[in-house]
Amino acid sequence: MEHKKEDFSEWYNEIIDISQLTDKRYPVKGMNVWMPYGYSLMKNTDEMIRTKFYEDEYEEVMFPSLISRPMFEIEFEHIKGFEKELFWITRGGRESLEEDLAMRPTSEAAIYPMLKLWIRDHADLPKRIFQIVQVYRYETKHTRPFIRSRDIHFIECHTAHDSYKDAEEQMNLYRREWDYFTKKLCLPYMEVKRPEWDKFPGAVYTIAFDTLMPSGRTLQIGTIHEYGSNFSKNYDVKFAKEDGTSEYVNQTTFGMSERLIAALIGIHGDDKGLILPPFVAPTQVVIVPITSADSNFESFVSEIENLVRNSGFRVLVDKNDNYTPGYKFNQWEMKGVPLRIEIGKREAESNSITISLRTRKGRIKLNKDDISQIKNLLDEVESDLLNKARKILSDGIEGIKTSGQESSIKTFILCDNEKCARSIEAKTELDMMGHILNYGSKGKCEVCGNEGRTALFSRPY
Amino acid sequence: MEHKKEDFSEWYNEIIDISQLTDKRYPVKGMNVWMPYGYSLMKNTDEMIRTKFYEDEYEEVMFPSLISRPMFEIEFEHIKGFEKELFWITRGGRESLEEDLAMRPTSEAAIYPMLKLWIRDHADLPKRIFQIVQVYRYETKHTRPFIRSRDIHFIECHTAHDSYKDAEEQMNLYRREWDYFTKKLCLPYMEVKRPEWDKFPGAVYTIAFDTLMPSGRTLQIGTIHEYGSNFSKNYDVKFAKEDGTSEYVNQTTFGMSERLIAALIGIHGDDKGLILPPFVAPTQVVIVPITSADSNFESFVSEIENLVRNSGFRVLVDKNDNYTPGYKFNQWEMKGVPLRIEIGKREAESNSITISLRTRKGRIKLNKDDISQIKNLLDEVESDLLNKARKILSDGIEGIKTSGQESSIKTFILCDNEKCARSIEAKTELDMMGHILNYGSKGKCEVCGNEGRTALFSRPY
Repeated sequence: MEHKKEDFSEWYNEIIDISQLTDKRYPVKGMNVWMPYGYSLMKNTDEMIRTKFYEDEYEEVMFPSLISRPMFEIEFEHIKGFEKELFWITRGGRESLEEDLAMRPTSEAAIYPMLKLWIRDHADLPKRIFQIVQVYRYETKHTRPFIRSRDIHFIECHTAHDSYKDAEEQMNLYRREWDYFTKKLCLPYMEVKRPEWDKFPGAVYTIAFDTLMPSGRTLQIGTIHEYGSNFSKNYDVKFAKEDGTSEYVNQTTFGMSERLIAALIGIHGDDKGLILPPFVAPTQVVIVPITSADSNFESFVSEIENLVRNSGFRVLVDKNDNYTPGYKFNQWEMKGVPLRIEIGKREAESNSITISLRTRKGRIKLNKDDISQIKNLLDEVESDLLNKARKILSDGIEGIKTSGQESSIKTFILCDNEKCARSIEAKTELDMMGHILNYGSKGKCEVCGNEGRTALFSRPY
Repeated sequence: MEHKKEDFSEWYNEIIDISQLTDKRYPVKGMNVWMPYGYSLMKNTDEMIRTKFYEDEYEEVMFPSLISRPMFEIEFEHIKGFEKELFWITRGGRESLEEDLAMRPTSEAAIYPMLKLWIRDHADLPKRIFQIVQVYRYETKHTRPFIRSRDIHFIECHTAHDSYKDAEEQMNLYRREWDYFTKKLCLPYMEVKRPEWDKFPGAVYTIAFDTLMPSGRTLQIGTIHEYGSNFSKNYDVKFAKEDGTSEYVNQTTFGMSERLIAALIGIHGDDKGLILPPFVAPTQVVIVPITSADSNFESFVSEIENLVRNSGFRVLVDKNDNYTPGYKFNQWEMKGVPLRIEIGKREAESNSITISLRTRKGRIKLNKDDISQIKNLLDEVESDLLNKARKILSDGIEGIKTSGQESSIKTFILCDNEKCARSIEAKTELDMMGHILNYGSKGKCEVCGNEGRTALFSRPY
């Protein structure tokens, strides 16, 4: 396998292939097949997000994938921002369609004409819905699995509120949810307020969650948008107030995608392969029996399997006789399974198991009666992954050389003025991503001397 | 509400609207919004199917939604069968695409070019995959929610085998799975072998599962197809045998869709609204407190809620103060919740609850300690729904007048000859659906006197 640090791009492509997350050979450019292992990882991630959204009382819906041209053209900034990326359906069977249909690149233009019908008065607010669907973008840039594709697995929340203040509180709820999701995925992030010229088409402002990939490039893995009444004015989404007048709703959105998978592949993996966060790993515990079978031994293996499963973990016993234990160890390490249990004759006779964690060297002996320790060991993997990744990110922000390489992101104290940002862009040949809200500090703009705060410059994916 | 028996079509549309399963007002023809209640019902159904397929060791995948024209044109019968129904994407952004892309109407043409890459030798067989996705058909007929739409929720299995015999065994596995699914959905069905001229484009033969809607029309709610090597020869899907030669795989598919929802709405519902099968009902148990609150009373209600939830049921307490208990009873009956618990002061004081089932009149008193009885009561709803629906179907097949109406399906003993079928079609003005394999009997063809068996004639949706 390629060395991750020497050629991240090659390593990334290779690990996705050999761990069978996705198959890139599908004959349509930029569209890949989700293989069982990759689909399971995505589905566990979806389910984590869905469960949280249910707890927080969002309702799950599913909108059609197609949007007519008139629906799109209601919001001018929005169509302008997306028109280069739309796939257009112009024919049905052998006929030309009367009205061209776009495949959704995101669902504002699909959802808001319906919100207009659903929201009548104060009692209908706040309205909070989400959907987990595929969206489609005609990407002309180089495509790459999970990072930039044309058929994208997408999670989107849309909310409507009776005031800007309530919409802002929703933005804070998103932040707390995002913090929970990324802890479970062991992903560190910068909360970056995109500059005016780079916000979502139609938004009042955009907060992006950027993470740092080992290539030194940043990857946007989530966004939350405050729309105010920009969309509701165009889509005519109003609510009747008690005094008889009516007012446009304030709206927000939260978007995440399969890029979450890209981030956890890139950030956690090593030269042995994937390392998957326990919360979403398709297999959390793999049991490798390392001796030939007799019935006592087999029943001990089954007993351990059941104990682990009944503790609530996704467990798999690798009984394949065609491979050696050593080969299997390598395979499951490559697949990123966080915890491995070896059971040999000695273990069975002493009612014990031998454990290896994907995140540290050495083996751990455990008595059968202490099997509840597995939870703590998986928690250790989770916190080790998160802490290691956080250190790399904060080193990068601080400009500290990590593992001999110079950090390829740069930060400057900067004001809000576009000219100041552009002058730094010209000097660094990096893009201004925005002000970082969860790292750095306030200070004087390094270009003009006005009030400013730490801003991120990087080469984004 | 419309009376179901007087105008089924109107009743069907109205119940879907008022129970908020889907919203038909989406501005693209034939595409509807899955509302939270409808989406939850579909998701529970998906999950039932997914769980079964996992048990039976299918692997879940997700293919891209788009298929290029050359991929489609590999199998001539297949493209011929679908070409009138394809949505074609011809533009990306402002450019014309080099190669037109079709939105999948089903996924043979997407999956089989990849199977060619995945299957090399005997060890790769049997290969059994499934996906739960949206498919798209440019329907020119009248569209109707869940029955005929242009953006269809679809569940499809694809398998490959080393022999026709093994593929036939797969067909039997499908039958057992189908029997399980329909028991849980309380849906009776006819297993109908479609005639040669009406089989799936590219199949050796097609078995359809047809059910009878209260309109008297039949609804195809599932199909299993034996492809033999028809597709594998065209898509070049071969496996190497031990003797060094290679052979084309034998393939099968199993398809189901949102029509399962159409069937359970139509078949189980009554003039009060939906009646949902307990296994998939979004809310299985609704608790309606029928007194004003004091803290003792509220804690009793919570205790009951927790007991029901901890028994594994989806339960909801309707605490809304704006409506009377009577109004709530009607609402939840309309929504089809199978079991309702009323708790008043008297119940709380006597540690008991009052239960109503959606499928029978009268109330059931239950002591708190007997709450495990709820499982049996939900089982009663399940078997009542299934038995009632089965009787209506078998009466229909037998030509027995049900509830005063003449059965609108007809059966004849018929041979395999197309001419015989066509002559009956002309006489009855109904379509020949095929021979029924799970009802009826063998005998002499009523047209020509040759060997035959019971065949179904109906007006299908």
